[in-house]
Amino acid sequence: MINELELLICSMEFLQSYSASFKSYLDQFVSENRTPKSLYEPSDYILQLGGKRLRPILVLMACKYFNSDYKKALPAASAIEVFHNFTLVHDDIMDDALLRRGNQTVHEKWDLNTGILSGDAMLILAYQLFESYEPEVFKKLVSLFSQTALEVCEGQQYDVDFEERNDVQVEEYLKMIEYKTSVLVACALKMGAIIGGASQQDADAMYDFGKYLGIAFQLQDDYLDAFGNPETFGKQVGGDILENKKTYLVIKALELASNDDRESLLKAMLVQEKSLEKVENVKVIFMKSGATEVTLKAIIDFTAKAFTQLDLLSISEDSKNELRSFGRYLIQRES
Amino acid sequence: MINELELLICSMEFLQSYSASFKSYLDQFVSENRTPKSLYEPSDYILQLGGKRLRPILVLMACKYFNSDYKKALPAASAIEVFHNFTLVHDDIMDDALLRRGNQTVHEKWDLNTGILSGDAMLILAYQLFESYEPEVFKKLVSLFSQTALEVCEGQQYDVDFEERNDVQVEEYLKMIEYKTSVLVACALKMGAIIGGASQQDADAMYDFGKYLGIAFQLQDDYLDAFGNPETFGKQVGGDILENKKTYLVIKALELASNDDRESLLKAMLVQEKSLEKVENVKVIFMKSGATEVTLKAIIDFTAKAFTQLDLLSISEDSKNELRSFGRYLIQRES
Repeated sequence: MINELELLICSMEFLQSYSASFKSYLDQFVSENRTPKSLYEPSDYILQLGGKRLRPILVLMACKYFNSDYKKALPAASAIEVFHNFTLVHDDIMDDALLRRGNQTVHEKWDLNTGILSGDAMLILAYQLFESYEPEVFKKLVSLFSQTALEVCEGQQYDVDFEERNDVQVEEYLKMIEYKTSVLVACALKMGAIIGGASQQDADAMYDFGKYLGIAFQLQDDYLDAFGNPETFGKQVGGDILENKKTYLVIKALELASNDDRESLLKAMLVQEKSLEKVENVKVIFMKSGATEVTLKAIIDFTAKAFTQLDLLSISEDSKNELRSFGRYLIQRES
Repeated sequence: MINELELLICSMEFLQSYSASFKSYLDQFVSENRTPKSLYEPSDYILQLGGKRLRPILVLMACKYFNSDYKKALPAASAIEVFHNFTLVHDDIMDDALLRRGNQTVHEKWDLNTGILSGDAMLILAYQLFESYEPEVFKKLVSLFSQTALEVCEGQQYDVDFEERNDVQVEEYLKMIEYKTSVLVACALKMGAIIGGASQQDADAMYDFGKYLGIAFQLQDDYLDAFGNPETFGKQVGGDILENKKTYLVIKALELASNDDRESLLKAMLVQEKSLEKVENVKVIFMKSGATEVTLKAIIDFTAKAFTQLDLLSISEDSKNELRSFGRYLIQRES
């Protein structure tokens, strides 16, 4: 879901050193040769498939902003990455996915039971990674982690539940994407802040910055899926429409469209037809209803809300500028 | 696996008050009405199916022995019970089981995806339950919990791996049953000790008492499965033999039997035949080879090893006697 973001981060030079440092820490973690191999090989496999490792890098960045050695944050950064990969292993089972990062998914390469049990072990390994912190910090990190992990499960469940419903409200949808995607970004930034010794107010502001930016990013993803440039978007443009996914555009169009257009949209979403014509027809309804405009406004609003959090932060202007560039990269993607 | 033990504990009067207290704490936990319901209903469902709740009661008992109010241990006791039920939900998927405690398993009542995701949420909820402890104790409990949880996963994986092998050694088998069954009993007792303020030595001795007793119990279970009294054993006598399970008796028989008997046993274990004749033939090999005798001796040895731990404990003689009765109940089951 956040691959695009991961690509973008590569182009931000100031993040490259964190990335190298994290990779070498994670490589060491993977090379610990736990037994039984049949339990841990799948975990090592998916961790080594890569990805741009956005979330762990955010942990390191945030720690640095509070004038701490970012290396102190490496165990927490690894915990976040191991947890994220745990969710991929179990989500891929639930989605019956064959491929992950261009390679076989764990349950395809091994089997269902291995996917379940190795995933469980990864969730526990993530918790263990916090054990290098002293008790006060350990408790703060683990509590935040549990809350976030539970919200990610809840977000996944809301997403499943929404598939069966045609009356999903905007507030419910926003809560779903917040839980499913953006709390983990927020958690990553807040963990870095905690390890860096930030005040409660600073840690909370970092969290909210990540939360609002994550929501803006996900809305942008919804928008680009319909209106993005096929050359640069990475995924198939129109993919959400073809899969009848209830994105922000759909929910807003159902709310704002004329009765006739609403009927057409609902009808289009009942069929499994995978044609370019369907994509074009639905996009016309998004435009005519004003859903497109409202979505773009929401992206701008959530980004602004994220940037407002920076005013509350007692970190250097340079650090704030880094966070702002990071945010701008996200919303200036090819639209 | 430990149902028999759960039944026995019911007859020990001094445990009844813990049981009632724990039930009311767990009922409150279940009634917290978390949302989305679709995620948490399966968790509430399995927690309310009951069982005798041996492990949480051990947490409370152990806490009391160190002159602490056992109620302080209720959150940790609940964590252990929620974790145990998480393992049941995921194990039932892996074993394709239809029934659990006489009711539909979670993945049968709902579906596979619900079983996976609700299970994941239960594992995280278990971690959250420790958050009422202050940081020093929190870190000790959570670290012990993670180590134990990981060992339980490893034990489950060894059990799966052993199905494919005919050369499992006794040491490997003992490690498997230690991880799969007895570390959680040991962890329960040690957690109670930690919450009660025990010294490191006392907490470790409680752990080892639970560990060795758990192994003795599991070996007793292997023995009774073949030689138990059908009237009192609860499960089908000969069940392990019919399912070609590699129990302690089998491993020892393969090691000790004459060449001919070893061949017969290996051959018997290759067929799916479910006859009383097969059970009787295999039992004769267990007896003739000396595997039965060696198994009984191992049960006595591990129980004695557990009791030796009591000498290291600085708790009252009354408390030690309670632990001894508890141990004796286990090994004096109908054989």
